[in-house]
Amino acid sequence: MNIGRYSLDKYIRLVESFHGNVAPGVLIGGIMVDAALERLNTTQLYDGICETSSCLPDAVQLLTPCTIGNGWLHIVDLGRFALTLYEKNSGRGVRAFLDAGKMELWPEVRNWYLKLKPKREQVREAVMDQIIEAGVRLFGFQDVEVVPLFLTKQSKGEIALCPVCGEAYPSDHGTVCRGCGGQSPYVGPP
Amino acid sequence: MNIGRYSLDKYIRLVESFHGNVAPGVLIGGIMVDAALERLNTTQLYDGICETSSCLPDAVQLLTPCTIGNGWLHIVDLGRFALTLYEKNSGRGVRAFLDAGKMELWPEVRNWYLKLKPKREQVREAVMDQIIEAGVRLFGFQDVEVVPLFLTKQSKGEIALCPVCGEAYPSDHGTVCRGCGGQSPYVGPP
Repeated sequence: MNIGRYSLDKYIRLVESFHGNVAPGVLIGGIMVDAALERLNTTQLYDGICETSSCLPDAVQLLTPCTIGNGWLHIVDLGRFALTLYEKNSGRGVRAFLDAGKMELWPEVRNWYLKLKPKREQVREAVMDQIIEAGVRLFGFQDVEVVPLFLTKQSKGEIALCPVCGEAYPSDHGTVCRGCGGQSPYVGPP
Repeated sequence: MNIGRYSLDKYIRLVESFHGNVAPGVLIGGIMVDAALERLNTTQLYDGICETSSCLPDAVQLLTPCTIGNGWLHIVDLGRFALTLYEKNSGRGVRAFLDAGKMELWPEVRNWYLKLKPKREQVREAVMDQIIEAGVRLFGFQDVEVVPLFLTKQSKGEIALCPVCGEAYPSDHGTVCRGCGGQSPYVGPP
C-alpha cells in the first residue's frame, strides 16, 4: 500500500514527525487525499477544503501542495470528517467523506469515529489495522462545485498602521486593528 | 545563520518543498519562531498562536511540534504579522511581531511589508537579503498571558449522525450538521 509517493511505513514515520503521533485521523486522511486526487483526475492547479480542523489538514499538507500558510488549504469547520479537492479555476471538485454506513465490517474504526467506546478502551493498533484493511471502502465520494468565494485569492488590500499598537494591519479591518478592537487572545494588551 | 535545527540553505529548501515557493513571510517567520522560542525559554509543552494565516503558520509548522491538524497551532486572524508561543499549562507566552518602526535601515523589507511598492516592482532577492541581514532586529517582543480559552483542549463532545446528510458531526452543533445548516462551501448539497 502506498500513500501519495510514500510507502505506508514512510508515510507513518512522516506523520509521526510532523503531527507528533500516528493518529488514526491522519492515516485515514492520507488514504482519503489519495483517493480524492485520483478521482479529481486533473492537470490543473487545485485547492483543498477540510471540513474539520482535526488531523485531516495535516494529511493534506503532507501530501499535496496545499498548506494553511500558502492559502491553498481552507478549513471550514463543519465538524464532518470530509475533504474536497477542487480545481482553482473551475471550482469543480471531488468530496470524500467518512461514511458511517460503511463501517459495519470494521467495528474498531466505527468505535473510534463515532466515539462508541471510551478512548482508554480503544486499542490504537486495532483501529489502525482496520483502517489499512478497509482503505477507500470507508469513504463516500461526491462531485461538487465550490462557491465563488473560494475561487479567488482574497487580497489583504491596503495596509495601515494601527493608531493604538502601531503595528501594520489591513485597513479594511477598521480604524484600529482587530487586536486592539477587542479580539486579542491575550489578557490585557497587546 | 541557522533557523531551528537547519542551516539557512536547508530551511529555504524545506520552505520551497512545503510552502511551494520561498516567500519572504516564511523566511521572516522562521527567524521569528526561533527568536520567540529562545525568549520563551521553557522545558514545558507549548502551543502557538499566529495572528495571520499568511505564510507565518507554515514557519511554525516546519519548526515546532505545533500544527493545524494536531491542534497545537491556533490561527486568530487579526491581520498582524505576529506570533505567540506559550506554555500550555500556565498560558505564559512570548509574542514576537514585525515592528514597522524598526525598518528604516531595510527599505526593501519595509516596501514589501507595508506594500509601499507594487509587487511587480519588488525584487524578491533584495527583500530576502535584507531580511537575512536584519534578522531579529526587525522584531518587537512582548511577554503575554493567553486567555483561558486557549489553555484547554476543546473536546468535540458527543457525536451524532446528521438526519439530512447521514454523516457524523458533534451533536452540540445543533439538530443538523453545519453543512446541512447552510454553512456548506458548495453549490447545492452536500
